[in-house]
Amino acid sequence: MKIGKLSPDLLKSSVLRFEGAKRPEVLVGALLGEDSAIIDMGDQLLAISVDPITGASAYIGRLAVHVSCNDVVSNGAEPFAIQVLLLMSVDNTVEEVEAIMKEISETAREIGVQVVGGHTEFTDKVTEPIIAIIALGKVTRNKLSTSTGAKPGDRIVISKGAGIEGTAILAEEYRDMLSELSETVLDKAARFYDMISIVPEGRIATSQGVRVMHDATEGGVIGALWEVAEASNVGFTVDRDKVPVRLETKAICDKLGIDPLRLLSSGTLIMITPEPDELLSELQKAGIDAAVIGLIEENPERRVIVCQGEEVPVTGPTTDELWRLKSPK
Amino acid sequence: MKIGKLSPDLLKSSVLRFEGAKRPEVLVGALLGEDSAIIDMGDQLLAISVDPITGASAYIGRLAVHVSCNDVVSNGAEPFAIQVLLLMSVDNTVEEVEAIMKEISETAREIGVQVVGGHTEFTDKVTEPIIAIIALGKVTRNKLSTSTGAKPGDRIVISKGAGIEGTAILAEEYRDMLSELSETVLDKAARFYDMISIVPEGRIATSQGVRVMHDATEGGVIGALWEVAEASNVGFTVDRDKVPVRLETKAICDKLGIDPLRLLSSGTLIMITPEPDELLSELQKAGIDAAVIGLIEENPERRVIVCQGEEVPVTGPTTDELWRLKSPK
Repeated sequence: MKIGKLSPDLLKSSVLRFEGAKRPEVLVGALLGEDSAIIDMGDQLLAISVDPITGASAYIGRLAVHVSCNDVVSNGAEPFAIQVLLLMSVDNTVEEVEAIMKEISETAREIGVQVVGGHTEFTDKVTEPIIAIIALGKVTRNKLSTSTGAKPGDRIVISKGAGIEGTAILAEEYRDMLSELSETVLDKAARFYDMISIVPEGRIATSQGVRVMHDATEGGVIGALWEVAEASNVGFTVDRDKVPVRLETKAICDKLGIDPLRLLSSGTLIMITPEPDELLSELQKAGIDAAVIGLIEENPERRVIVCQGEEVPVTGPTTDELWRLKSPK
Repeated sequence: MKIGKLSPDLLKSSVLRFEGAKRPEVLVGALLGEDSAIIDMGDQLLAISVDPITGASAYIGRLAVHVSCNDVVSNGAEPFAIQVLLLMSVDNTVEEVEAIMKEISETAREIGVQVVGGHTEFTDKVTEPIIAIIALGKVTRNKLSTSTGAKPGDRIVISKGAGIEGTAILAEEYRDMLSELSETVLDKAARFYDMISIVPEGRIATSQGVRVMHDATEGGVIGALWEVAEASNVGFTVDRDKVPVRLETKAICDKLGIDPLRLLSSGTLIMITPEPDELLSELQKAGIDAAVIGLIEENPERRVIVCQGEEVPVTGPTTDELWRLKSPK
């Protein structure tokens, strides 16, 4: 198999249909487009999500914390704890474990989350450290946001820009191929890691009562929108010219011939809302860039990107541009 | 580093001191000897644990479910949901994903647990499938059991026997070196996988109000007891002759020159209780073998195994016998 997550079709046929027993505590279980499970704990709901970091080497601890906490934030939940699964190769050292745990702990402290154990193991089954973080968040019933809530006519808002995480990874890992770009651009791009938490915009969006939030991870902005559209059984129109693409992202993507809208984009929050104006103004007050990039459509078959007046249909989320670049077959 | 978990000393210095922020929701966070974190969700407590399977190839799905659910059972919690992290090598196929998910789902159904999503990814960072299962259990405050509760004078009871999981793994992976043993013995040993869930004895022990439960994983019965002793700041005396060791385990361990008391033993529940008689009788009624193997001591420095009248001090949990066998340096 190619590197990356399973395609939605394969997920449906090979993973999601295996559900074990049915339990009344489970409000949202295994569903396409839902990154967290939602559990009824009586007074409160628990949002829980797990994400591994396998495709990046720098800031692996920081990334791992943000990516998982972002998932529960997308449910309108307040992340409060993480568990850490750390699989180290036998070539790694205890000092490397310590450095990763320190980074995880510092990142957790920044966003107000406690590290509550986990599992650390040295194994000959991995060639590089793999971190998976399990994020726990709590949310009351009336604040819960899931991917099934998008309605025709809703606006699609995104924060920060397309391809945030991918830009940082490319600036680091493909520096040789990007040598024509200035050092300033590449250094700035590498610092996009600092934008990967969506906790700030997630809190604002939750307080503004948006219908759906979704973190744009693999497959980028278009991949995330596809997942929301599948979960909500709707279509979408995205105006390519309105999608904010940062200068550094554009320079790097142009150079490597990849589409920023389909590039790994942790740090970009997709927000679906009938009333984007107040949301945009609140985000702006907090110093967070955001823009309306399109519209939710009633017809689930209609999923298009409008580009200079022409409609390009989106036929399904393809492999993330980052994986395409790494294994171009 | 050698294959396996970090030693307790290294854990303390390199992992457990990194705690992120402090949160009031967290009742039990990162502690030696506690396999689950305990979270206050208002009405109920949540027990959550993550365990990867990296050292076994057969029944990997079934093992993964049991090992993680066992952890939350040890807290007196009722497991109700699992999340699945599945990291497949690029040489694996979608059919292999499906077979693993099917096995996970069937095992979950057997113990009444729902599969609530997770993450499946193909990556070039692993050489074989790695499964990590996150188990969620719920428990009321008065039923909570943690490893800190052992008191001097308490009896140490174990279920089934020492080295249950390790026996099954050795019978499969070391069949060549064990060819002098009969096929019948080896086949029976390989079926020890069927004993790996401690859900049945855990429910009984919880209803009997035992003080501490602990699943004997890496480091076996002695490793688990060491963790409990550390967490409770006590010592222990174990009478080697009283530790049930099944015929198949004894035959295999003798042949390979390893100590069954320090062999991977998921499926063996350590129960610490002041009143073992009723517990033993209830376990017997349910058809579960169990025995009193020793005593909790007041002096934390006194941790000994009594063997034919002689006291052998336990100076610390060593590497699991399985890892010692695999990398004998």
